[in-house]
Amino acid sequence: MTYCVAIRVGEGLVMLSDTRTNAGIDSISKFKKMFVWDVPGERSLCMMTAGNLSITQSVMTLLQERIDDDTFTGETILTAANLYRCAEVIASTMTEVMNRYSLGISNAGESAASSIILSGQTKGDSPRLFMIYSAGNFIEATDDTTFFQIGGFKYGKPILDRVISTETTLEDAKTAAFLSMDSTLRSNLSVGMPLDLCVLEADTLSFSEFRRIEAEDQNFHALSEAWSNAIRDAFVSMREMPK
Amino acid sequence: MTYCVAIRVGEGLVMLSDTRTNAGIDSISKFKKMFVWDVPGERSLCMMTAGNLSITQSVMTLLQERIDDDTFTGETILTAANLYRCAEVIASTMTEVMNRYSLGISNAGESAASSIILSGQTKGDSPRLFMIYSAGNFIEATDDTTFFQIGGFKYGKPILDRVISTETTLEDAKTAAFLSMDSTLRSNLSVGMPLDLCVLEADTLSFSEFRRIEAEDQNFHALSEAWSNAIRDAFVSMREMPK
Repeated sequence: MTYCVAIRVGEGLVMLSDTRTNAGIDSISKFKKMFVWDVPGERSLCMMTAGNLSITQSVMTLLQERIDDDTFTGETILTAANLYRCAEVIASTMTEVMNRYSLGISNAGESAASSIILSGQTKGDSPRLFMIYSAGNFIEATDDTTFFQIGGFKYGKPILDRVISTETTLEDAKTAAFLSMDSTLRSNLSVGMPLDLCVLEADTLSFSEFRRIEAEDQNFHALSEAWSNAIRDAFVSMREMPK
Repeated sequence: MTYCVAIRVGEGLVMLSDTRTNAGIDSISKFKKMFVWDVPGERSLCMMTAGNLSITQSVMTLLQERIDDDTFTGETILTAANLYRCAEVIASTMTEVMNRYSLGISNAGESAASSIILSGQTKGDSPRLFMIYSAGNFIEATDDTTFFQIGGFKYGKPILDRVISTETTLEDAKTAAFLSMDSTLRSNLSVGMPLDLCVLEADTLSFSEFRRIEAEDQNFHALSEAWSNAIRDAFVSMREMPK
């Protein structure tokens, strides 16, 4: 399984992903699911992937190959005019890969379903957030829906539903992403540490944070513990309410 | 969708279900999913159902018909020696109904998958909790796993994972069931009020509560509001933690 969350608030973007991949509960591996392209002052892109790993890896490889290929004349995510056009490039690459493999995968009784979250900012545009589906279609986050999740998202959704809006500070969005991940890690064994975190402050056009949070990270453990205690205290305070 | 939760603690059992049924988002109905049989001093049984409504309704109807049929010579849930035997009766009725309809349903491209939670106590035995699957197999809650959920269970699982153990008081278990339902109602439109609640104190052999909580219930709204505020306060208190 996988859990990735991207939050778009007025102050910028926060992205957080786990790194666990499994093909059955006895076949667990660690794979990076977060990919960034930072061209300071021009564009900062972050992508997170979920679903069939063979599909998403092929998409990421093709996107990178075309960036690196000087003879490639088409549009790439580094030349596309804005984030919407980047989403189109990624979506058409997804379609290309799906056309090649999805029938064979479904004939083998497996699911080729995959999804990609794209977030970032290009010069002259505001920070944007997209969700790209296997079918090559995509949607963009709006002020009404300010976060996207992929993978095993349900355990971590209630806290986001409660605290996230477009007015949320970037720091609070980061905290919410951590707590959302913490709930998911507790309830879903197939989501696991380490985590990858990426933060983009609006209009800076360069990531302010892009780092890995290891399993033994003291701050994450302290936050997780403090949150557990705070939830238990909140629960105890409900005892006085009539039911 | 559906959300039902049953919690077994040392002091007894708490069961809570929603009442919303949907066949697609534009076809929503209200159906009772909680069924109780109370024979004070002898046995108290509570069942909750999820999945294909045609399957679970047939199971419930057959179980009741056989209780009412004086000529029926087989075992019923009111004559079975203990709750384990009741689970067997329900499971074999499930198998009987599945054998009749599941092929036709799956040929129509629909899912016949269903599940039933059985909880209660019979004289001379302790309070017990079972989960019965479509295939006619079933499991029993133990001290390690003290609650079962059916339907859209993920949104409401984190709070149960955090606070429920076999030492939890019955009153706290009731609060946890309400908060678990509240998180589910907020995040999943296909789960809806009113709710049905059933509480059985251990060794009383009669339900202490069996009531419907209507959409306009003031206590439930106040609890939901207080919990929202408590979670937001807990969230604010996380600001000081290093991340």
